[in-house]
Amino acid sequence: MNYDAVFDKWHEECGVFGIYDRHLDVARYTYWGLFALQHRGQESAGIAVTNGDDIELAKNMGLLTEAIKELPKLKGHIATGHVRYSTTGSNSPRNIQPLVIHYQDGHMGVAHNGNLTNALAIRRQLEDDGSVFQTTMDSEVIVNLIARSKAATIEDRIVEAVNKIEGAYSIVINTTNALIGIRDPHGYRPLCLGKTEHGYVLASETCALDVIKAEFIRHIEPGEMVIINDEGVRSRIYAPVEKIEKKLCVFEYIYFARSDSNIDGQSVYETRLNMGRELARETKYDADIVMSIPDSGTTAALGYARESGIPFAEGLIKNRYSGRTFIKPNQEERELAVRMKLNAVPEVVAGKRIVLIDDSIVRGTTSGLIVKMLKEAGAKEVYMCISSPAIEYSCHYGIDTSVRKELIAATHTVEQIREYIKADKLHYLTQEGLCRAITNLESHEMCFACFDGDYAVAVPEEQEEGVKYVLE
Amino acid sequence: MNYDAVFDKWHEECGVFGIYDRHLDVARYTYWGLFALQHRGQESAGIAVTNGDDIELAKNMGLLTEAIKELPKLKGHIATGHVRYSTTGSNSPRNIQPLVIHYQDGHMGVAHNGNLTNALAIRRQLEDDGSVFQTTMDSEVIVNLIARSKAATIEDRIVEAVNKIEGAYSIVINTTNALIGIRDPHGYRPLCLGKTEHGYVLASETCALDVIKAEFIRHIEPGEMVIINDEGVRSRIYAPVEKIEKKLCVFEYIYFARSDSNIDGQSVYETRLNMGRELARETKYDADIVMSIPDSGTTAALGYARESGIPFAEGLIKNRYSGRTFIKPNQEERELAVRMKLNAVPEVVAGKRIVLIDDSIVRGTTSGLIVKMLKEAGAKEVYMCISSPAIEYSCHYGIDTSVRKELIAATHTVEQIREYIKADKLHYLTQEGLCRAITNLESHEMCFACFDGDYAVAVPEEQEEGVKYVLE
Amino acid sequence: MNYDAVFDKWHEECGVFGIYDRHLDVARYTYWGLFALQHRGQESAGIAVTNGDDIELAKNMGLLTEAIKELPKLKGHIATGHVRYSTTGSNSPRNIQPLVIHYQDGHMGVAHNGNLTNALAIRRQLEDDGSVFQTTMDSEVIVNLIARSKAATIEDRIVEAVNKIEGAYSIVINTTNALIGIRDPHGYRPLCLGKTEHGYVLASETCALDVIKAEFIRHIEPGEMVIINDEGVRSRIYAPVEKIEKKLCVFEYIYFARSDSNIDGQSVYETRLNMGRELARETKYDADIVMSIPDSGTTAALGYARESGIPFAEGLIKNRYSGRTFIKPNQEERELAVRMKLNAVPEVVAGKRIVLIDDSIVRGTTSGLIVKMLKEAGAKEVYMCISSPAIEYSCHYGIDTSVRKELIAATHTVEQIREYIKADKLHYLTQEGLCRAITNLESHEMCFACFDGDYAVAVPEEQEEGVKYVLE
Amino acid sequence: MNYDAVFDKWHEECGVFGIYDRHLDVARYTYWGLFALQHRGQESAGIAVTNGDDIELAKNMGLLTEAIKELPKLKGHIATGHVRYSTTGSNSPRNIQPLVIHYQDGHMGVAHNGNLTNALAIRRQLEDDGSVFQTTMDSEVIVNLIARSKAATIEDRIVEAVNKIEGAYSIVINTTNALIGIRDPHGYRPLCLGKTEHGYVLASETCALDVIKAEFIRHIEPGEMVIINDEGVRSRIYAPVEKIEKKLCVFEYIYFARSDSNIDGQSVYETRLNMGRELARETKYDADIVMSIPDSGTTAALGYARESGIPFAEGLIKNRYSGRTFIKPNQEERELAVRMKLNAVPEVVAGKRIVLIDDSIVRGTTSGLIVKMLKEAGAKEVYMCISSPAIEYSCHYGIDTSVRKELIAATHTVEQIREYIKADKLHYLTQEGLCRAITNLESHEMCFACFDGDYAVAVPEEQEEGVKYVLE
Repeated sequence: MNYDAVFDKWHEECGVFGIYDRHLDVARYTYWGLFALQHRGQESAGIAVTNGDDIELAKNMGLLTEAIKELPKLKGHIATGHVRYSTTGSNSPRNIQPLVIHYQDGHMGVAHNGNLTNALAIRRQLEDDGSVFQTTMDSEVIVNLIARSKAATIEDRIVEAVNKIEGAYSIVINTTNALIGIRDPHGYRPLCLGKTEHGYVLASETCALDVIKAEFIRHIEPGEMVIINDEGVRSRIYAPVEKIEKKLCVFEYIYFARSDSNIDGQSVYETRLNMGRELARETKYDADIVMSIPDSGTTAALGYARESGIPFAEGLIKNRYSGRTFIKPNQEERELAVRMKLNAVPEVVAGKRIVLIDDSIVRGTTSGLIVKMLKEAGAKEVYMCISSPAIEYSCHYGIDTSVRKELIAATHTVEQIREYIKADKLHYLTQEGLCRAITNLESHEMCFACFDGDYAVAVPEEQEEGVKYVLE
Repeated sequence: MNYDAVFDKWHEECGVFGIYDRHLDVARYTYWGLFALQHRGQESAGIAVTNGDDIELAKNMGLLTEAIKELPKLKGHIATGHVRYSTTGSNSPRNIQPLVIHYQDGHMGVAHNGNLTNALAIRRQLEDDGSVFQTTMDSEVIVNLIARSKAATIEDRIVEAVNKIEGAYSIVINTTNALIGIRDPHGYRPLCLGKTEHGYVLASETCALDVIKAEFIRHIEPGEMVIINDEGVRSRIYAPVEKIEKKLCVFEYIYFARSDSNIDGQSVYETRLNMGRELARETKYDADIVMSIPDSGTTAALGYARESGIPFAEGLIKNRYSGRTFIKPNQEERELAVRMKLNAVPEVVAGKRIVLIDDSIVRGTTSGLIVKMLKEAGAKEVYMCISSPAIEYSCHYGIDTSVRKELIAATHTVEQIREYIKADKLHYLTQEGLCRAITNLESHEMCFACFDGDYAVAVPEEQEEGVKYVLE
Repeated sequence: MNYDAVFDKWHEECGVFGIYDRHLDVARYTYWGLFALQHRGQESAGIAVTNGDDIELAKNMGLLTEAIKELPKLKGHIATGHVRYSTTGSNSPRNIQPLVIHYQDGHMGVAHNGNLTNALAIRRQLEDDGSVFQTTMDSEVIVNLIARSKAATIEDRIVEAVNKIEGAYSIVINTTNALIGIRDPHGYRPLCLGKTEHGYVLASETCALDVIKAEFIRHIEPGEMVIINDEGVRSRIYAPVEKIEKKLCVFEYIYFARSDSNIDGQSVYETRLNMGRELARETKYDADIVMSIPDSGTTAALGYARESGIPFAEGLIKNRYSGRTFIKPNQEERELAVRMKLNAVPEVVAGKRIVLIDDSIVRGTTSGLIVKMLKEAGAKEVYMCISSPAIEYSCHYGIDTSVRKELIAATHTVEQIREYIKADKLHYLTQEGLCRAITNLESHEMCFACFDGDYAVAVPEEQEEGVKYVLE
Repeated sequence: MNYDAVFDKWHEECGVFGIYDRHLDVARYTYWGLFALQHRGQESAGIAVTNGDDIELAKNMGLLTEAIKELPKLKGHIATGHVRYSTTGSNSPRNIQPLVIHYQDGHMGVAHNGNLTNALAIRRQLEDDGSVFQTTMDSEVIVNLIARSKAATIEDRIVEAVNKIEGAYSIVINTTNALIGIRDPHGYRPLCLGKTEHGYVLASETCALDVIKAEFIRHIEPGEMVIINDEGVRSRIYAPVEKIEKKLCVFEYIYFARSDSNIDGQSVYETRLNMGRELARETKYDADIVMSIPDSGTTAALGYARESGIPFAEGLIKNRYSGRTFIKPNQEERELAVRMKLNAVPEVVAGKRIVLIDDSIVRGTTSGLIVKMLKEAGAKEVYMCISSPAIEYSCHYGIDTSVRKELIAATHTVEQIREYIKADKLHYLTQEGLCRAITNLESHEMCFACFDGDYAVAVPEEQEEGVKYVLE
């Protein structure tokens, strides 16, 4: 996760995709799949394709459509792809995934989504054994573990390697003769399996299956590895049973995933609708309209509207052409930066008591500016409703820990936050309400650590102190 | 207007912006203003700034944020800006606006939105008199008319020039000492006036005033010219009274303008909401949900939902990261191209009778693919409602006339179109319903020519035959 | 002409090329021709191709190979091309030649080499008559004159136009059905005619004929216009006889032209060899070796060596990979800048009395640094010999007049210059010696104005005062 | 070495540079040093700078001035730099040097010039031990060896590593606290040491010292390692005495090095002059002029002229603005490709018996086209003299072995080559003559393997069969 100051949001770091098909142009299909996963990372994109003998890599900084201007020339039948949202300090061209390496058994392309908590310790140990590192990616730690393994088969070597790492990881690998998908024992990050006419697909979200009309088969289980080759798909629970304990990151439902995706059997769209309904039940605000901060709060706002009977309206219009690089407003023009992305519709908001739905508040600054914008457009009252509990703890499975001190909820009460953003009311969805919204998973199957600080995986001390543990 | 094959939409060609302010960095403000007008044109962008002595131009192909990487170095107090959506054949770098020229009275930057119907005739006449042309822009015709005028003042010369041209035009000009705004006698294209603390702003839409927090003053009248200089704003009705007859392009409300803008006293958002309401009244469909094809049909869909009581839902999710250039799907992958932009949410649509709102149908191919997508996601029935009458005629004030033969409504009945797109029902908003939705303008104040073929400005014969009259 | 501070040289502004051939890919041939003329201009390049109906233009900043990455798509049979060395203030993308315009008789591509002395006056007059200008190029003045002419044929219109302009110009024009070449009545800039198997070629220098194996026919005469079309080549003396007076720029022989070219019947290589011989006769220095500052002084150095019997040696080695844009040394690192381009060979120069040949001295700074470099490498004495007379006057036919105050010879005696550059001896070739070196032209057929201030074309007063007369 | 088809030449692969200085902007100095070494490689350039804590790398494809647009931001006191001429198949962006890695002792930047003959064997062995490779560079093999070493100090680890590799290598390394230079036991590739005011410099050639005015100290010896840190320079003979046997690549004198450099105590310029003298003594041709194919044959041609008394002339003019990427002539336009680079001066060559000097013939095609060009320009007879013996064997220390079958001298007698290139006479400098020209080295101190097939380092069988052993 990373933080977008203008929209006051955390962002997921990555999306992964893999395909094994001898009848398709796998590079093209990976491209379409990554296109559908672009919301999971916009900093860089890469595609690796192998035909068993050679492996070719196309990668660059930027959106997929900027990064990949021509598809890898090498025709093959196994491809992996990756889109990345960089964490601070890791946005170097050399850190673009997939990572392609040559080792004793041939070559390998590795793309992963997540964050290892013991990467630094393993890296140091590998260095002590004579490994060299050219990047700061966790993937490089993983491939070194694989290459160092003395196990007999590549499959066993991978198993040996991933059993040494801890943290959040959904990994796709193309070896010389197989496509492999791995999900960590907690299943923090999603990974699903689909079927093409003559082959198989792995993807972070089901929306990437839909775009290429692959048939959804199932979600990969926590601690599971799937091996796809000419003989079909084979599954293997690689992790010791006692270590498997599902802890899907609940932010996939709140914000990260695309709402047309289904994560672990649960429709993201329905979940967000339910969150809105729960918010309505918890607040019972008397208001004239329900609105969202587009686009992420819209589905929850519809849920609130349906449950409460208060009409939904679009009182904030988003500029669809924001572009990625532009001449930045000065620091003092923070308000301008918000107006460049959003504008209030006076005809909608003037004189109204507004229920305003957003999915989260990180620092609060942007929320405050939006409340101000609505008031200036004539809003009578603004009741801010957040479709998640307050974020009080930082995430160790994919976020720069230095952000914690900026989390407004870590240091302010709800009432203090309400005052800071100058809303007339403020309500965060309760953790219970959130759990009710997610109908197909038990509450113990999800990670709520950013709300309650209950980390399933022990965090190294240095991280607790807020020390960045990536090398760069 | 131009046509987007994937979304089956016409596009507006341009947005203009102008500012006169001795206390602001006018280039930066023009940049922010154009940012808000980006929806009116994404092919190129340009900014011209003058300090009275020199004029500097920054322009390039692409989105504003790609085209303008650094703001013009020349500091000045008068700027004009332009974003363009190219018509076929005019997408040459040399046609990027504003056009900057030197002539006997100094220099001039000209940006215009619209299309002249007698441009070719005037161009030929000017050539007969020895003018040379380096571009195919109408702006070049206008500046040559100005330069040729024998009138005493620059203001009178401009008046003489614009009284010779016919068609649709909203023009902003920075001369050496003034910012000038002109709207054609029919007022086809919008233009509004705003106020900064120490100066004035002109813009195609009010959303460009909002982004820089300029105070909205009023809309420029058809046939009006405003002259802004150190003495303030002066207005002049330049056109003969008998020629002034307001004919605002109704597509500004239906599709072109941003919904947070106000065009000629009418809120775009409210108009779209009303269109949906009118559609509900005209159809009275019995259905389970109301949906839109995002983003343009959403407000009308909300209106339909409110009027009918049928719940609004987001059954189609749009990919927010489409990028501008990408590896194109093959021709046969037309369906893939649609899936790259839209995806159905099965949980929302399965088993449902759906009212699907869109703002227009041009060729029908995309509509058919979207209906198919919904049916494949389980929709029981799809009732397509279009928030505008059927487009049966081409537009002569800003569109490539060659498109006419592709207009499905020009050659098919509504029933035939319904069959073609395989919808279960199909309804177009009636022209009367559309007029009712626009509460602040009389029906004779708008142009409906693309629906009824009633062109206020006579069209040269060669155009009627579908001959492109731009040179290039 | 323009000035290169590191090499202390003036540069020619342009090279032109034209071809008429219905059997060749004229765009490709123009590309090769311009490639051979690259030494005449490295700032921008352009190629215009017409098939009679349409005209296509490819142009950009940079060396030909950077500027033209793909050849114009339009296939045609008439092409013009241009390479430019920008004068200060004119290096804008919009000033890249050829200039392509549309006018009453069709279209036209115009490329020209030289500088008009009455451009500003004509421009003002044209503006008074209602012309507008988008560039600051002289070409735009010329095409406006052509378009304004009331003469019956395009040929007569061109004649009427060029009879109004004064100064230096060699022009190539592709009209809709002809390739036209024009040389000014003084013939300041060269222009030659060649033959392909089925057509004809025009070029600034014969080396551009050689590269495409075109057969050299003859040089265009001062005041002559050649018209090439399907009927072959036709010649016309367009200028009044009393105005024709050959005044070829003598710097073409000294420095501008490539030594494998033949200018007006005189081999450039032989001329430079002769200059060296004349220098040897005039100086009779007793020395150990003769050297040049590569590459421009080398041929003259060989001439000096042959005449004097003193051996020629390469005591300064030039870096062949200087590149065009690089991280500039600081101002104080001027010496470094010279060392980046040249290095002395101690084994050659140590202990030697050196005759060092260069073609000119503009400011003297670089000459001084080179003398210093040789002394530091052990040279005993350095006798600087310049293969041209001292440049005391600025050039009005293609140079930024502001340079005059920097001309060291305009303000210093030869002895003072020698002291400034710290050479042990310094000799400039006499004007008589220079004339002897050019065996095929009479001295009155050449312009020596930069040596003696005798300008054949009257210079407008404002220019004499050093006022730049280009608009930009 | 690599092959340039147009100029029929082999090229050196690399140039290296290193600097240790706490008082200079080492990145800038590395930039200037590489600028002077650009002739050794034009495909890519890179600079790594360390301050002991961090290491920063700037690298890209292209000439130095294109590749490095801004110098590394990290200020430090130790830098290494590299320019590369790619061998076929290795021109991937990921293979640009220096290679920067992190390992147990910190970080390291490594740049090397040469080619290992046992790289593949070591690579396989390292892979068996669990190393992974991301590039196909020999440098990556070396750093893995260093990281794997169990020696106590970084210095000892490097020694252990380089004692395992075989072939040609001159290496510069910046560790966290030292700059290290290493030359292989045969000293195939040059490396020299210079002094700045407060530090030291290492470079492939002395011309890189000259550009930054570093004082030349001495050449690094075969089998020597120098360690530069705050305590100064320390030297260590790392290779076993019995393995040290100087075998400098004689092509450094013939063609690779810049003529203003001094390699192992021998002036390159003087050597080339001597080669020409030897050629004159060996041939004693009766001719009218001596010419070279510029630029590489010029110095030898001067030597021939001096020895023989036949005047030197420039009969072939080289286009100085060839650019690196351009629209390629078709295959059938091979002759055009040569004319784009060279043109004959008829006034020099017509009617003459010409001694034409070049440094080598690889395939002979270009030589034949140049002889043809001279004959067409009127040359009476062309006596081709090559300033090196015939290249009959491929080089294993830095060349794509697949070239061997294209070496004309490997399959043709001298007389057959003469016929093929249509010269009237043809003479190759004898190996004895070449040795006489190199006055300061014994013949056994140089490698003549490409002439006589006598390889000092055993070549793996797979290479003998012409199998490329780089992975990619």
